[in-house]
Amino acid sequence: MELKLRSQERPTTDTARQYQTNALGITQANIKSRARATAFDQWMVRKMLSAIGDPAICIVLWDGTELTTSSAPTSVLTIHDRQALLMLLLDPEYYFGDLYSSGRVEVLGDSTEFLETVYLAIQKCASKSGWHKLMAWRHHPRTNTLRGSHGNVTHHYDLSNDFYKLWLDNEVMQYTCAYFPQEDLSLEQAQLAKLHHVCRKLQLKPGDTVVEAGCGWGGLARFMAKHYGAKVKAYNISHEQLVFARSKALEQGLADQVEYLEDDYRNMQGTYDVFVSVGMLEHVGVQHFRRLGDVVDRVLKDDGRGLVHSIGRNSPGLMNSWIEKRIFPGAYPPSLQEMMDIFEPHDFSVQDVENLRLHYSKTLEYWLENFEKHSDSIRYQFDEAFVRAWRLYLAGSIAAFNTGELQLFQVVFNRALSNDLPWSRSHLYQ
Amino acid sequence: MELKLRSQERPTTDTARQYQTNALGITQANIKSRARATAFDQWMVRKMLSAIGDPAICIVLWDGTELTTSSAPTSVLTIHDRQALLMLLLDPEYYFGDLYSSGRVEVLGDSTEFLETVYLAIQKCASKSGWHKLMAWRHHPRTNTLRGSHGNVTHHYDLSNDFYKLWLDNEVMQYTCAYFPQEDLSLEQAQLAKLHHVCRKLQLKPGDTVVEAGCGWGGLARFMAKHYGAKVKAYNISHEQLVFARSKALEQGLADQVEYLEDDYRNMQGTYDVFVSVGMLEHVGVQHFRRLGDVVDRVLKDDGRGLVHSIGRNSPGLMNSWIEKRIFPGAYPPSLQEMMDIFEPHDFSVQDVENLRLHYSKTLEYWLENFEKHSDSIRYQFDEAFVRAWRLYLAGSIAAFNTGELQLFQVVFNRALSNDLPWSRSHLYQ
Repeated sequence: MELKLRSQERPTTDTARQYQTNALGITQANIKSRARATAFDQWMVRKMLSAIGDPAICIVLWDGTELTTSSAPTSVLTIHDRQALLMLLLDPEYYFGDLYSSGRVEVLGDSTEFLETVYLAIQKCASKSGWHKLMAWRHHPRTNTLRGSHGNVTHHYDLSNDFYKLWLDNEVMQYTCAYFPQEDLSLEQAQLAKLHHVCRKLQLKPGDTVVEAGCGWGGLARFMAKHYGAKVKAYNISHEQLVFARSKALEQGLADQVEYLEDDYRNMQGTYDVFVSVGMLEHVGVQHFRRLGDVVDRVLKDDGRGLVHSIGRNSPGLMNSWIEKRIFPGAYPPSLQEMMDIFEPHDFSVQDVENLRLHYSKTLEYWLENFEKHSDSIRYQFDEAFVRAWRLYLAGSIAAFNTGELQLFQVVFNRALSNDLPWSRSHLYQ
Repeated sequence: MELKLRSQERPTTDTARQYQTNALGITQANIKSRARATAFDQWMVRKMLSAIGDPAICIVLWDGTELTTSSAPTSVLTIHDRQALLMLLLDPEYYFGDLYSSGRVEVLGDSTEFLETVYLAIQKCASKSGWHKLMAWRHHPRTNTLRGSHGNVTHHYDLSNDFYKLWLDNEVMQYTCAYFPQEDLSLEQAQLAKLHHVCRKLQLKPGDTVVEAGCGWGGLARFMAKHYGAKVKAYNISHEQLVFARSKALEQGLADQVEYLEDDYRNMQGTYDVFVSVGMLEHVGVQHFRRLGDVVDRVLKDDGRGLVHSIGRNSPGLMNSWIEKRIFPGAYPPSLQEMMDIFEPHDFSVQDVENLRLHYSKTLEYWLENFEKHSDSIRYQFDEAFVRAWRLYLAGSIAAFNTGELQLFQVVFNRALSNDLPWSRSHLYQ
C-alpha cells in the first residue's frame, strides 16, 4: 500500500471563515484532542463505515488508533478530534466537506481515489435509496427565484475572474464539461471541440440568431459569432463574468455580433433561430423547468433548434449537500425524466441526447491539476481552508462522474412541426 | 388543384367484417342515402371541420353538396350517407377508420396528403390539448397483462406471414423503422443499415450473449449471430412469427447461435451482455414499464449494454383510437419522460437517444408502395375492407410521422457503474 500525504502543513483554521463549520460551536481548544479513543469512539467509527457501505478505507483516530473493514484499504482518513467524528456520524455528506476544509479530517493519499472508494461503497450498499432519501430529507437546495438566483450565482461566479483564469482553459474560458473525441486532447483542444460539437448539433449557419441562457464568460457566444457567423444575445446574472465577456468581445472585434445582457433567463425578449444553454440548468431548479420551457417556447422561431447541456443524474437525487451549501448554492442536477418537464409541455421534439459523463471527469482532472499548480497563489489570495474546500469540490466531482453518481447530458430539440432534420448525425463526426 | 382517385371501384361492404363498423347498427339500406343534404347536415360538417382546426380540405356530401373552409383545398373527402357524417361528428378519430374501410367515406386524391393536412390542422388548432384529453377519456387501450398481451399480439402478428412478405423488405423482414443515413437507399439497404446501427450502438462483438424482447420474424437475432458472432436468445409470443424465424435460422445454419423462445418478455431467464428490444415497447403499455425495467435489471450483466427502439411521442397521448382498436390492440407510444420509468428506478444510465421520426415516414412510404403493388392479391386473400383499412393505417402512419404526431426513439443505456464507454459516437459513422 503506497500512500502519499498531499498536504504536509496543517491549515490555520482561524482564517478558514466561509469554509469552516461552526454549526456545533466547536472552538479551537476542542481541536486536536489528546484524549484516548474509547471503545465508544471505535463503535462510532464502525457505525459510520457501515452506514456508507464499508468502503475499503482505513480510519486513523486522534490517538493513532487504526480501524478498517478491509484487509487492503486504498486510502487513509485521519480524524483529528472526537467532535469531528461525532459530526461525521451525524451527517457525513455535509460535515465531511467542512471538516476537510478546516483540516480536522485529512486524507492520506489521493483524495479522488479516496472519494471514489467511498462513493462506490455507498452506491453498492443496499441502503442506497434510503441514504438518498435521508439526505433529501435533511437538505433542501436553496430556491432559485429571481432574487434567490442572483444571490446563488453571485456566491460562486463573482468570486474573482482571476481565480478562474488560473485553472480553466486559456482559449475560451469554459467552466463546463469539455469534449474529448480523442482521449489525448489538451484541455484547450477539448473545450474548442466541445464548442464545435454544440454548434454542429445545432446546425449553426451564418446569419442565424442565437439566444443563450447563462453564458458564463461569454466564450460560446463569441465562438459562435467568430466561427459560424451567428448573431448572439447572451444572458447572465453574474456581473463579474459579463465585464470580462464584454471586454473580450470588444478586443476580438465581435461587439456588433454579440450582445451580453445582465439579466435573468426569465426576462429574455425577442425570437431566435437557436436557443442554447450550456451549464445553466443545474442552477435553475426542477420546480422552474416548466417556466424555462415557457421561455424557450416564447423565444424560439417555428423552425428553431435548441440545445441544453447540463449535469444530471440517472434518477432523481440531490446534489451533495456540502457542495450545494458551500460551493454551488441552489444547484440541482436533474434526471432525464425531470428534464423532460422543459420539453414535453410545449411539444418540443427531442432529437438527440448524448451522455458525456466521463468527459467531465477528464475535464475536472485537468482543472484539479491546474488548481494544484497554482495552489500557493490561491492560498495567498484566499486562505488554506479555501484551497482545501475547492480541492475537495474538484476531486469529489471527479469521483462523482467516474462512479456514475453524476451524468452530463446534451439534449438537442426542435419544434414538433419542423422537418428540417439531418438524415444522420454523421456531420458531427467529419 | 390536381386530384387523383386512388380506388375507383366501390367496396363490397358485406365482406368487410372486422374492419366495418356496426357500432350504430347501420344496415346496408342506410348507405348511399339519396336524401338531399339539409342546412343541418351542412352545419354538422362545419362543426366537424371546426373541431379539427379547419383543415384545407373539401367535403362532398352524398347529394354532391361541396363544403370547404379553404379557397384552395388540397384534398376532397366524400361522405356517402348522413349516418356516416353523424358518426364523424361524434368521434372523428375512431369512426373515420371504419367508415373509410367500408367505403362510406372516400378520399379523392392522395390519402397520405389528406391525412397530413388534417393532422397539421389538429396540431395547430388551439384546442389540441383538449382534443387529446377528449380522446384519452373516450379510448383506453387494452391492457397488456400476460394473457392480454397474447391476444393483442396474435391479432396483428399472426395475421399471415405471407401477407407481411408481400410488402416488407425481402432481406431481413423487418416490421420496424429502417435507417436511411443516405436518403436514396432502398428499403432492403435501409433495413440492413438499421440492424448495423443497432449493433454498433450496442458495441456488439463476437461471443457476446444477447437477449431480445419481441423479435418479430427473428431478423435482428440472425443478423447479430451472422455478422457480429453473437449468441442470441430471442423472445416472442407470436407463434406464426417464430415458426418462420426458426426455419430461417436452420436454413442459414445459425440454429446453434440463435434460440427462439415462444414466451413473454416477463419470463426471461439467464444473464446476458446485451439486452435489445426493437419495436416491442409500443405493445408493453406504460403501466408495465417498471416491470420491464425489473426484467432488464434481472437479465443484464454488470457491464451489460442495452437498446430500446420504440415509437414514441413528444408528450403523453394515446395511439390513434381506430388503429389501437382495429390494427394494434393495446398499443401505446410513450413519451421520453414515460420511457424513463424503465431506466431510472434501476439507476440505468442513458447514454444516447436518437430520434428517427422521418426515417419511419420513409420506411412506411416503401411499405405502402409495396402494399399497393400487391393490393389485388391481398384483396383476394382478405377483402376490400381489409385492403382499405391497411391502406389507411399505412398512410395515416406516414402522416403521423411526417407531422410530428409520432416519434421514433432509439435509447442506448448501461449500468451506472460501467465505465466501458466509447469516447465518441464516431464509430457509428465509419
